[in-house]
Amino acid sequence: MALEIDLHCDMGESFGIYSLGNDQAMMPHVTSISVGCGFHAGDPHVMRQTVALAKEHGVAVGSHPGFPDLIGFGRRKMHISRQEAADYIIYQTGALKAFCDQAGVALQHIKPHGELYQMAWHDDDLARGILEGLAVFRPTPIFLALYNTLPYNLARQMGVRVAGELYADLDYLPDGTTTIKKKHGAVNVAATVDKVLKMVLENKVATLDGQEITVQGRSICLHGDNPRAPELAQALRRELEARGVKILPLHAQSFA
Amino acid sequence: MALEIDLHCDMGESFGIYSLGNDQAMMPHVTSISVGCGFHAGDPHVMRQTVALAKEHGVAVGSHPGFPDLIGFGRRKMHISRQEAADYIIYQTGALKAFCDQAGVALQHIKPHGELYQMAWHDDDLARGILEGLAVFRPTPIFLALYNTLPYNLARQMGVRVAGELYADLDYLPDGTTTIKKKHGAVNVAATVDKVLKMVLENKVATLDGQEITVQGRSICLHGDNPRAPELAQALRRELEARGVKILPLHAQSFA
Amino acid sequence: MALEIDLHCDMGESFGIYSLGNDQAMMPHVTSISVGCGFHAGDPHVMRQTVALAKEHGVAVGSHPGFPDLIGFGRRKMHISRQEAADYIIYQTGALKAFCDQAGVALQHIKPHGELYQMAWHDDDLARGILEGLAVFRPTPIFLALYNTLPYNLARQMGVRVAGELYADLDYLPDGTTTIKKKHGAVNVAATVDKVLKMVLENKVATLDGQEITVQGRSICLHGDNPRAPELAQALRRELEARGVKILPLHAQSFA
Amino acid sequence: MALEIDLHCDMGESFGIYSLGNDQAMMPHVTSISVGCGFHAGDPHVMRQTVALAKEHGVAVGSHPGFPDLIGFGRRKMHISRQEAADYIIYQTGALKAFCDQAGVALQHIKPHGELYQMAWHDDDLARGILEGLAVFRPTPIFLALYNTLPYNLARQMGVRVAGELYADLDYLPDGTTTIKKKHGAVNVAATVDKVLKMVLENKVATLDGQEITVQGRSICLHGDNPRAPELAQALRRELEARGVKILPLHAQSFA
Repeated sequence: MALEIDLHCDMGESFGIYSLGNDQAMMPHVTSISVGCGFHAGDPHVMRQTVALAKEHGVAVGSHPGFPDLIGFGRRKMHISRQEAADYIIYQTGALKAFCDQAGVALQHIKPHGELYQMAWHDDDLARGILEGLAVFRPTPIFLALYNTLPYNLARQMGVRVAGELYADLDYLPDGTTTIKKKHGAVNVAATVDKVLKMVLENKVATLDGQEITVQGRSICLHGDNPRAPELAQALRRELEARGVKILPLHAQSFA
Repeated sequence: MALEIDLHCDMGESFGIYSLGNDQAMMPHVTSISVGCGFHAGDPHVMRQTVALAKEHGVAVGSHPGFPDLIGFGRRKMHISRQEAADYIIYQTGALKAFCDQAGVALQHIKPHGELYQMAWHDDDLARGILEGLAVFRPTPIFLALYNTLPYNLARQMGVRVAGELYADLDYLPDGTTTIKKKHGAVNVAATVDKVLKMVLENKVATLDGQEITVQGRSICLHGDNPRAPELAQALRRELEARGVKILPLHAQSFA
Repeated sequence: MALEIDLHCDMGESFGIYSLGNDQAMMPHVTSISVGCGFHAGDPHVMRQTVALAKEHGVAVGSHPGFPDLIGFGRRKMHISRQEAADYIIYQTGALKAFCDQAGVALQHIKPHGELYQMAWHDDDLARGILEGLAVFRPTPIFLALYNTLPYNLARQMGVRVAGELYADLDYLPDGTTTIKKKHGAVNVAATVDKVLKMVLENKVATLDGQEITVQGRSICLHGDNPRAPELAQALRRELEARGVKILPLHAQSFA
Repeated sequence: MALEIDLHCDMGESFGIYSLGNDQAMMPHVTSISVGCGFHAGDPHVMRQTVALAKEHGVAVGSHPGFPDLIGFGRRKMHISRQEAADYIIYQTGALKAFCDQAGVALQHIKPHGELYQMAWHDDDLARGILEGLAVFRPTPIFLALYNTLPYNLARQMGVRVAGELYADLDYLPDGTTTIKKKHGAVNVAATVDKVLKMVLENKVATLDGQEITVQGRSICLHGDNPRAPELAQALRRELEARGVKILPLHAQSFA
């Protein structure tokens, strides 16, 4: 069976008068987006507009819930309880789902943002809270998570459809986790394409310290604040398709 | 056909460490509640708990969206656009609906809070924005509004099921609108029961300046911060039922 | 005596990860700035950095307090009481003053932002609340206000030093007030310089409907989000100085 | 020389419509208060009122800055940088100081709140950030901190006047730190007085696990949400004075 890969970007991170990212330029090149839900970024107006833009381009939509920390963009560690994690996922995703309903698009997936995504790698309670929040929605959204992390494995155990996320433009550590960058510099497109091809076709990626580790994933995450991101997305699509990989949103992929 | 009346209370207005209202004491005595959604009051934790408590008592749930003004409790006039009104209704109600889905209860109605409720009496754009927000949800929630006001009449024209709200413990002005009280003092239960009976059975209410005007409604609003509110609710139920009025949540009432 | 004019720009309007304006580029060209204080824009980090940058360039600092409405950037009308206005001015200006103390610069002035600035033109309570807030600080800051408006005239009656603000890049209405633009387009530098020269040297400005009205002011407001703002500032300085006008921050000007 | 002890309570923790604590009842019985500054609790209106009430009773005022986490009441761990800590202390304390200036009372001290207080026990960067913020104010406020903790010792090294805080109604751990209680139940007044007398007169306190450790302090912290707190405060004052201890606010105590 042909490999299937989703091209994915976090969007809807503007707030009020403040503009962030490059959603207009990236939308034509991706198959899925994760939309900020008003806690770490995004507001009701931005959410509506982002979902409408996705629909216009036939792009699948997921929620991107984060910590209630706008000033820190959800990138500061906060210690919340399992119940709070569930409640925050439900609140934010529920709000986004209403905009999806308005636009007539499905809620494809949930992908926690920033430190809510990262802290759960090492916090069983947090991971469980996130998945309890996800379980509220029908049809159950796909869980977008980093391969082989605690929440990824937990979701698999629970029978939740989970999609591994591959980072085109972040560095990998030996344990398979990645480093957040405050700002994503200009990427080397050719080198990044090579890295992604290796991740997708050989399930291998080089770590920062020169090792090679196994990764699996259905979704390649691109960062829209990178000025060459649209170019990178186009190159990835072209090179992946040239090798027989199908570029498909998560909901159109085959889950065993 | 017998008259049908809903007993209703705004709930879920606590926030974080802050407690407001008397939800535990009032819940057994009402048939519907409107739940704060995090903008003027309420937070994800409070929303989940409030919906769960309603389910436990078989009480119907609606959303109570307000202005994004926690410090002013949504009781300060803010000039927002029609689009912003729609977006705020969608965001807040969507968040609440997710907690309803979690608890397995329906989203019965939408009732805007405070100045979002009141400013719409005199602002066609605001009224339309609110109703555009309401129209997103399926099944379409009942719109809870003050009789004969602009949003009430607009909803009827649009074919939305609208329920008139009758205020047991607020004063009426000659134009049929009511005055918000910052704090609801101890009510005279007997006098309030008489007032409500007259509203329900004769469709009449005395105004502050001694006139008598026509009112219609399916829902009697009680305020839980009134220490005698539980007693009042019980007396209303008893006296209304004694006169053949059925006490029913809005969703169980007959809409022509 | 030579005319004295302050060149002024609103700054420090970034928030968290969000960047707004062009403070680095404009700072060398102005003599005073008004700094966002965290309610409608700005955060503690941005405030500290902005004050430090002003100090580096020898630019005078004032506070720019606004409504507690980050999502609306303080540009939505909110109805607050006189006491709330005073409290908001005190809170925000007090916070900024601490950063001024840290940097060793004086708090030169207070200029309300957005609708807090504009609503006071027609609201005596609001104007009085603002001035009650200003009166708390020592030495009493200069009040930066639009010429001949209610708060401007009230400040004069109260003996507060008040500086008229002249808008280089906003349109004037026949009553002497101006219109807020959501976004400031590219200006015609030559035409704007002519307009300002006329305002400063002849105390006249053309209104949108072709009349000519009297204006007075000590401070010319420029908007940093205009891409040609640095060029405009330089041209204004050059042309004003060529006509014998001294470019001086407000605190260095002579108040009768 | 006679021992000198401050009786102290956290106040000004109400927010908007939400009331917390029992400031009116406690104010007559204390010599100092720490006032919430709007991040974890408190708002501009509450701050003004609280400072005014303190002035009325001749009670000394300090700031009680916390994490920007209203929903979590500043009691959730947040990982902020040293610079952010300094900025938050400066912003919040500056805001409070303006209300102190308005009322004509001095800013006596700074006491971080909740997890900003507690995390600094084990985080050198956080402790330094807090003290960098404190150093901005003139005259330099007293630093109120738990005896022998990292920030306490750091302040002493830096030559900052630091006052040890003794907790009448919290349990001590063997390392000299205390446990936060979400809610403070009714205290046993007699037992608490005995505990405090021992802390003040013998510098000893029993820990949860039955050890006895050394403590030193100039300020006894009482919690106003305890219904017997006023009674406890009166008993403490009486018993301490009976043993020759002077009850004095921190600013009136002798610092070597």
